[in-house]
Amino acid sequence: MKKHWIAIDWGTSNFRAFLMKEHECLDQISAPCGLLHVPDRQFAATLKPLIGNWLDEFPQLPVLMAGMVGSQQGWQEVPYVALPAGCQQLAKYTAVLETPWGSPCRIVAGVSGNNEFGLPDVMRGEEIQLIGLAARHPAPQNSQYVILPGTHSKHAELHNGEIRQFSTFMTGEIYSVMLSHSLLGRDVPPAPEDEPAFALGVTHAQRAPHLSNALFSARTLRLNGVLAPDQVASYLSGLLIGAELHAVAHKQAWIVGSPALTERYTRAAKQLGITLNSADGNACFIQGMTQIYQCLNGESA
Amino acid sequence: MKKHWIAIDWGTSNFRAFLMKEHECLDQISAPCGLLHVPDRQFAATLKPLIGNWLDEFPQLPVLMAGMVGSQQGWQEVPYVALPAGCQQLAKYTAVLETPWGSPCRIVAGVSGNNEFGLPDVMRGEEIQLIGLAARHPAPQNSQYVILPGTHSKHAELHNGEIRQFSTFMTGEIYSVMLSHSLLGRDVPPAPEDEPAFALGVTHAQRAPHLSNALFSARTLRLNGVLAPDQVASYLSGLLIGAELHAVAHKQAWIVGSPALTERYTRAAKQLGITLNSADGNACFIQGMTQIYQCLNGESA
Repeated sequence: MKKHWIAIDWGTSNFRAFLMKEHECLDQISAPCGLLHVPDRQFAATLKPLIGNWLDEFPQLPVLMAGMVGSQQGWQEVPYVALPAGCQQLAKYTAVLETPWGSPCRIVAGVSGNNEFGLPDVMRGEEIQLIGLAARHPAPQNSQYVILPGTHSKHAELHNGEIRQFSTFMTGEIYSVMLSHSLLGRDVPPAPEDEPAFALGVTHAQRAPHLSNALFSARTLRLNGVLAPDQVASYLSGLLIGAELHAVAHKQAWIVGSPALTERYTRAAKQLGITLNSADGNACFIQGMTQIYQCLNGESA
Repeated sequence: MKKHWIAIDWGTSNFRAFLMKEHECLDQISAPCGLLHVPDRQFAATLKPLIGNWLDEFPQLPVLMAGMVGSQQGWQEVPYVALPAGCQQLAKYTAVLETPWGSPCRIVAGVSGNNEFGLPDVMRGEEIQLIGLAARHPAPQNSQYVILPGTHSKHAELHNGEIRQFSTFMTGEIYSVMLSHSLLGRDVPPAPEDEPAFALGVTHAQRAPHLSNALFSARTLRLNGVLAPDQVASYLSGLLIGAELHAVAHKQAWIVGSPALTERYTRAAKQLGITLNSADGNACFIQGMTQIYQCLNGESA
């Protein structure tokens, strides 16, 4: 195994890279260079200057990438790995790429399978944090329930360090499109979070179990003066996060996400009697990539 | 009671007017002159030419209006009537308007109350069809469950001809914004309805009870080749209508809506073991307005 390598999380909107020495992170960069900002599929030409300083020091540094870079819209499509998926399977199905400057380069596949409701589901990128979480925080009972909040929130069940099942909730995207494009968002000003309005949304999501019905209360509570226009976004967020957490049948779960979302989810979960333990997203990503890199190099993970 | 009068349904997008002689409809017009198309609150100036032919024959014809024309964005805001609401209450709380040409004119109020989930709900316009339906099709057991599908579908319970409770489902608006603005609608071409894809959506809505989760299957079923791009809209429609009907605890209900929506809902309901009886929307509206006009004129409804 080469001592130095690069781990990259290349998603739709963002790009993050970590200069690694074995399992240790020496340096990191992030840039608003997600796939949407790559002109005309010029992935190599976009990547090279981003990691140029590191390549100057270590030419032909191996690169391991994960995220939407392995999707149809990415550098190279990597077919999904089927559930259950652990470190070994993810390492086995990485795709090999050529880079013009000679770095050996691989892209980790996403994961697909049937979710707990029997419908097909997919993830691409989140599997790394899940594998990393399982390694950083091994479960005494071998099972873990993990929430990765976001545009498309993932709820995953881990067993013995493998992803056994997961479900997607379109929480972030529904929030955004309803606020921007539906009656609910009309004349809603940008505003800081309003905790009481958020908490009311969480409560109402439990009371009104049909989301397409519950959402309308973001309108009626404004009509009857319970919500001011600058509280509507927080209420809507509480409704959607509350509806998502309604699907959690555990009293305890992990959450891996941005500090702001983690804080909101933890607050909502507490209202519902669920304790969320927060794990650091970057640390889980680095650990997951290290596990896979070690598998690829024939070392025990 | 004057023998001739005009009943008007003035909504956000559409305008319909009926020339009445007592309870009989003599003539009708419709125009794309919804409130959104009224320039600078010129309601009287917009209305007069629309009903000009009738006014030529019967000057100062009484006018009774319903719909969003009574909202904050309408001609004059009419406060909601509280549940339970019947013909007498709706007549009592109509608002009186002056018209420049001397027609006595009234606007019927909408209805507000707590829905079956304990959240505030409102309707404006649908109450007329409900009152009309109850009069046209009196229930042997005195109770009726009625679905009015649309952008904001209403499910109402009638008892002895009164609206006792109702709930709104944002089915049509969620369909439209998700298709136009979310990942689900990306590269979805306009296409005629696909019945098998619609039926699959209805089935999956029962299997996956969390809407923000179920919606994601409109993406994954496309990724795994089960749905073609031109089937996605029908599938999404089935998912949302299926989720809405999931809230119906009756084996039999009325539906009042456009022929296309009525047909879709009836098909979905049949899949779920629910029989929907269709009532004509125009006939229900005319009957409801007649009931209220008669109440206003001191006649027994």
